[in-house]
Amino acid sequence: MQFDKTQLAAMERFYRGNLVNSITGLKPVHLLGSQNTSGITNLAIFSQVIHIGADPALIGVLFRPAMLGMNSLENILATKHFTLNHVNESMLLQAHWTSAKWQESEFKAVGLGEDWKDGFPAPFVAGAPLQIGLSLAEKHDFSINGTCLVIGKIEKIYLPDLALSPDGFVNMEKCGSMACGGLDSYYRPELVSRYAYAKPGSQPEKF
Amino acid sequence: MQFDKTQLAAMERFYRGNLVNSITGLKPVHLLGSQNTSGITNLAIFSQVIHIGADPALIGVLFRPAMLGMNSLENILATKHFTLNHVNESMLLQAHWTSAKWQESEFKAVGLGEDWKDGFPAPFVAGAPLQIGLSLAEKHDFSINGTCLVIGKIEKIYLPDLALSPDGFVNMEKCGSMACGGLDSYYRPELVSRYAYAKPGSQPEKF
Repeated sequence: MQFDKTQLAAMERFYRGNLVNSITGLKPVHLLGSQNTSGITNLAIFSQVIHIGADPALIGVLFRPAMLGMNSLENILATKHFTLNHVNESMLLQAHWTSAKWQESEFKAVGLGEDWKDGFPAPFVAGAPLQIGLSLAEKHDFSINGTCLVIGKIEKIYLPDLALSPDGFVNMEKCGSMACGGLDSYYRPELVSRYAYAKPGSQPEKF
Repeated sequence: MQFDKTQLAAMERFYRGNLVNSITGLKPVHLLGSQNTSGITNLAIFSQVIHIGADPALIGVLFRPAMLGMNSLENILATKHFTLNHVNESMLLQAHWTSAKWQESEFKAVGLGEDWKDGFPAPFVAGAPLQIGLSLAEKHDFSINGTCLVIGKIEKIYLPDLALSPDGFVNMEKCGSMACGGLDSYYRPELVSRYAYAKPGSQPEKF
């Protein structure tokens, strides 16, 4: 099957949304926790999350064009802090359900607990297999479609001991973290292989 | 286990690289195909690839700070076109090996075939389960760490019929596309569930 840009432009909207959101491949699933200046919390599911750099340690989150009710973005700009929380298989339904248009905090609405700790000014998700606390570093607006990329600096990382390798690698299968595809689909990852640093002349070894 | 920003800043470089590259979670694996103005091809593995929008259909690729030998970026800026190709399990070793510092085209060096078709001015990867042809739309420089995000507009999509659902969703397990974790690890995805569009009041159904 093949499609070109003319067919893409003419496609029924939901079909195109499913197709184009699928073809970037496997994506992470994060629950983004924040609060507004009155202390009302917000929790939202994101898959457009990207590693930006290790030193300084930075992660980017893409936001759709600003609209009323985009509380996560408003909260980050107001409080300068947010959390990213991995999603395990037992939390999938609740994580997906945060995307409904709730009037109340999504934590309470879907039944996920707030985890406040170490004085960090945004809520982590209780029971999430891996939790990251971030401060706002930069925001870049993309005029081409009105999206923006929020870049956060990593302040805190909490992860399960059993998933951490001696060289710093974190195994997503041992962590229990799920992957996402398209707009509504979730995958269980199975680690197949790690490969050594690649050099010309000899095939990289598995380890 | 937990780490804070002070520990991150003081970490041994490779440990920090493995850790921070792991915690963004599951990532896609793409082989980026390009050519220079003399027709010399280049193939490079990327996991920092992000959906930017469906209409227009846009994908972003993050590049590390510009340095000599960053042929993919130079080629895209010169020729305005590139391809993204999913990686299946039988191509993993070759895909990883493209990251070595080759003097010749990585296609020939690692043994992957060039797939030229429909007049598209950049090489696809022969046998890749899903292939995307893109034209350069925008480039955003991130001063915080010298990276840049290249945003490409989707011109062509080739995918296997059996992976395409009637609603436009593409199943990565049926496609055979792998996920990546950290800098050197690859995962096989198993589809667990799709959930209906989420609304308040009733739990989203699986389908």
